Amino acid sequence: MRTTEFFIPTLKETPTDAVVISHQLMLRSGMIRKLASGLYTWLPLGLRTLRKIERIVREEMDKAGAIELLMPAVQPAELWQESGRWEQYGPELLRIKDRHQRDFCVGPTHEEVITDIARHELSSYKQLPINFYQIQTKFRDEIRPRFGVMRAREFVMKDAYSFHLNEDSMQQTYERMHTAYCNIFDRLGLNYRAVVADSGSIGGSTSHEFHVLAESGEDAIAFSNSSQYAANVEKAVALPDTTARPAATAELSKVETPNQHTITDIVSFFSVEPKQTLKTLVVHGNPDEQGNTTLVALVIRGDHQLNEVKAENIHSVAQPLTFASDAEIQAQLNCQPGSIGPVGLSIPIVVDHSAAHLADFICGANEDGYHYTGANWDRDCQYTTVADIRNVVNGDPSPCGQGELVIKRGIEVGHIFQLGAKYSKELNATVLDEQGKSVTMLMGCYGIGVSRIAAAAIEQKNDDHGIIWPDAIAPFQIGIVPLKMDKSEQVKTTTEQVYQQLTAAGFDVLLDDRDRKTSPGVKFAEMELIGVPHRIVIGDRGLAEGTIEYKHRSAEDSTTVPVSEIVDFFKDKITL
Amino acid sequence: MRTTEFFIPTLKETPTDAVVISHQLMLRSGMIRKLASGLYTWLPLGLRTLRKIERIVREEMDKAGAIELLMPAVQPAELWQESGRWEQYGPELLRIKDRHQRDFCVGPTHEEVITDIARHELSSYKQLPINFYQIQTKFRDEIRPRFGVMRAREFVMKDAYSFHLNEDSMQQTYERMHTAYCNIFDRLGLNYRAVVADSGSIGGSTSHEFHVLAESGEDAIAFSNSSQYAANVEKAVALPDTTARPAATAELSKVETPNQHTITDIVSFFSVEPKQTLKTLVVHGNPDEQGNTTLVALVIRGDHQLNEVKAENIHSVAQPLTFASDAEIQAQLNCQPGSIGPVGLSIPIVVDHSAAHLADFICGANEDGYHYTGANWDRDCQYTTVADIRNVVNGDPSPCGQGELVIKRGIEVGHIFQLGAKYSKELNATVLDEQGKSVTMLMGCYGIGVSRIAAAAIEQKNDDHGIIWPDAIAPFQIGIVPLKMDKSEQVKTTTEQVYQQLTAAGFDVLLDDRDRKTSPGVKFAEMELIGVPHRIVIGDRGLAEGTIEYKHRSAEDSTTVPVSEIVDFFKDKITL
Repeated sequence: MRTTEFFIPTLKETPTDAVVISHQLMLRSGMIRKLASGLYTWLPLGLRTLRKIERIVREEMDKAGAIELLMPAVQPAELWQESGRWEQYGPELLRIKDRHQRDFCVGPTHEEVITDIARHELSSYKQLPINFYQIQTKFRDEIRPRFGVMRAREFVMKDAYSFHLNEDSMQQTYERMHTAYCNIFDRLGLNYRAVVADSGSIGGSTSHEFHVLAESGEDAIAFSNSSQYAANVEKAVALPDTTARPAATAELSKVETPNQHTITDIVSFFSVEPKQTLKTLVVHGNPDEQGNTTLVALVIRGDHQLNEVKAENIHSVAQPLTFASDAEIQAQLNCQPGSIGPVGLSIPIVVDHSAAHLADFICGANEDGYHYTGANWDRDCQYTTVADIRNVVNGDPSPCGQGELVIKRGIEVGHIFQLGAKYSKELNATVLDEQGKSVTMLMGCYGIGVSRIAAAAIEQKNDDHGIIWPDAIAPFQIGIVPLKMDKSEQVKTTTEQVYQQLTAAGFDVLLDDRDRKTSPGVKFAEMELIGVPHRIVIGDRGLAEGTIEYKHRSAEDSTTVPVSEIVDFFKDKITL
Repeated sequence: MRTTEFFIPTLKETPTDAVVISHQLMLRSGMIRKLASGLYTWLPLGLRTLRKIERIVREEMDKAGAIELLMPAVQPAELWQESGRWEQYGPELLRIKDRHQRDFCVGPTHEEVITDIARHELSSYKQLPINFYQIQTKFRDEIRPRFGVMRAREFVMKDAYSFHLNEDSMQQTYERMHTAYCNIFDRLGLNYRAVVADSGSIGGSTSHEFHVLAESGEDAIAFSNSSQYAANVEKAVALPDTTARPAATAELSKVETPNQHTITDIVSFFSVEPKQTLKTLVVHGNPDEQGNTTLVALVIRGDHQLNEVKAENIHSVAQPLTFASDAEIQAQLNCQPGSIGPVGLSIPIVVDHSAAHLADFICGANEDGYHYTGANWDRDCQYTTVADIRNVVNGDPSPCGQGELVIKRGIEVGHIFQLGAKYSKELNATVLDEQGKSVTMLMGCYGIGVSRIAAAAIEQKNDDHGIIWPDAIAPFQIGIVPLKMDKSEQVKTTTEQVYQQLTAAGFDVLLDDRDRKTSPGVKFAEMELIGVPHRIVIGDRGLAEGTIEYKHRSAEDSTTVPVSEIVDFFKDKITL
């Protein structure tokens, strides 16, 4: 492609409404433009990357035996009513009415539609297992779309759904998809991890997320430093310390702590480590049989973070998890939130394992301006329940039993899931088995956030000059910058020849053929901004010695390559 | 692809709700399934064809210098309000509200969005001309979706939009697109015609439709038998006969015609030709300055059809064209609709040129049960206006001045259009010209109904056994049916070898590898139903002589091809 025949509207300034680097760089490099909140146009440059991601996903899905189809984006409400999700799904489901006032939605996902197809088209065990997929534009009416295409309302997704006679078959396809996903992310050239995810209300541990590792990732992931174990921190179990709790050595003492509210305040005031303090959070409890509700205290160590997913699963805690207001706490507990502690507290107390293992701790005295030091469980206070309600941290023992946990950040770009009979049962999707008996099919589902991958790849690799693309999904693999092409016949001829040769060899080449009104410096900067991984410069000085200058996007220095060897040079470097 | 690893759910019975042959065959061959009214899932077989059409369209658009991007399907109302179409567009525009009660639509077309992009990204004449396109799922909330994907609500379209500094440039890109469209439809292997279309309120003759010719086509197209002229019958001008009207020879005579209402009745009753009679239709007129409305009579020859588009453009006729009810006619004209005629008629009379050229005609007497014979204009009755308000018919002189018109039927699959400044003016999309003066850009737009092409191709070519695909868009180009593969080692080995060789040579091959439980007859019938254009049969009898049986889908008889030559045989036959 020649720059003069393409369209790359780069921006010099970073748009003010773009917070994350991928959003900034996608705007600046002319990959995307915002149409409205959460709605983006993929400009020509961005679309090239999007299509390359799609192609790799498609090829690996095909290789893994999945069969592509294409379902409508607009779906009738009836199917969602059958599955129960018309009511359950929140406002992220864009519900619409057609001209005849019939209810539809713009599909955020397609379990209902594919199950409807399966129940009509599949009748015998002989047709199973079968795995359908599509690559399609979906819509999720996010309350706060942000980060560009990372959390857009309209986005491109690959979603696959498999159907099975039994669990063994479901497990086999699940493993095949796990492998296919690894192949996909390998080919995309991304540093990623498959991570154990909680399968929530479905049961079993049969769900994995695929995360692209990047410091800016929204999700924290816990890895074992000596096994394959990896889990979303939301779901990683914090193993309890099985040793006996240290004995109490200090006396309980009430200390005046004027204006000391936070753990940071207290740690500094008493010159102790945070892990010697307790943090008490107050949330709403579940109503009892009479419908009465109480507040519930959640107690964790001062150096830990509450894990809201875990806390929400505690029986006495209301779902969804909601924190008591200052006013509610004042009314019921007669002090401010920063002064709560378990000693003498009149509401149920759920304490985290690590907090329950503490002796001689510091905590709020349930009286404004006072804290206790030397507090101890049993002797000075009691808890109602002990449970795992905190996020794991660096150095925690791995739940797999091997090694310690290391926390990194990731961007979720894929999720595979054993659905079991959740949808097939509601929609009555059955086949006849070998004995002629009607059985409900089991299902798996497998998603990849295609458009999100483009952003995740940028988050993972960029520098002050712009994007650094992996070869496989770079909009162009090779950039050519000729110097003074409109003055030097030799540069012009060689450039044209090299461009033709590289294009004919199958490489995606961007030739910056703009005339001298655009300086070489500007051309170099734009090649770097848009992240072209391989750049060659063709100029009279090099040509005098029969060479071209080559530089990889992430290399410091350039090297020279003989003109005659340029095609072979790239054949060695770039996997087509 | 192997049949056992693919999914082709064929149907033996023709679904009762499918009226046209393409809809029937797409359902029966397992290409599509209905999800809801006007919403179809593209099953794996259908999707293969859809993707091939997309690829050809994309390649030719790229070749013609258009640049692909991808705009959101969901569009904010504000842009449509700016262009005025939020109000103007009928209920086909699916208007929706997001969770914040903001107005959006699901895009049926993207003029507003692309013009918004252009006004932000294009600032100088140096960036022009530029032509953007996308291939995307669109939504049009048809009042009565029908004929499967032919008139669906959700459909795939290629839409392109070009931007220009001046009319010359717009004309050049228009011609380039005309050529690209011809290349596309040539490569698709379709019998098509480019047809002059009316550009409606925009002015100029700068609009062409592309029609796939098929007897079942919804549109009638008029061709000259001795020039390149072709136009949609809706828009083809019926030239007036410039000779003098024949003189009156008969006496006006009122004849009792009990129960004779239609032209057929009258022609038979009087033993005359239809072209000697007049048909008078009564419609609503435009309100006058006082806001009073009257009925208007439209008079055409008995053998002609009213052209509603032309009639609607007559000043005295109300838009949209609506026929008066029987009750309205009875109340105002004191007789039934089948008895109306111009003699003594008290409302404005718009008469077609050909009807105005008649002498000694038969017409209704404005009295139930009576007609006039020997009626003549001027002497017996007067008209208010003479105009072209009929459809052209076979044998009419071509409006181009050369030859006579021939009427054929077509399916509109493409439309190219010079928009001029219609959208760029409303949205204020300007650039600076060479003199630094701000000028409004001119635009062209160019659409292709990608999903509709699949149906149109089937309408054009099919037989009692099923679809007959052109090679270029067949889901599979070659079908292999091995005979008794599970019994004969030789058949099995050769089949596998031929399948591998043809696949490696780049052909799309479907190997029917189902075991003997599926009879060869069923396999042949399915290959024919799904329209595989080239079929080979591999059996022991042929292999004894080193040959394979070959048959083209539309040939009567099969021929034999040496096994060793099979790849070259297809390389000669099929363009890859």
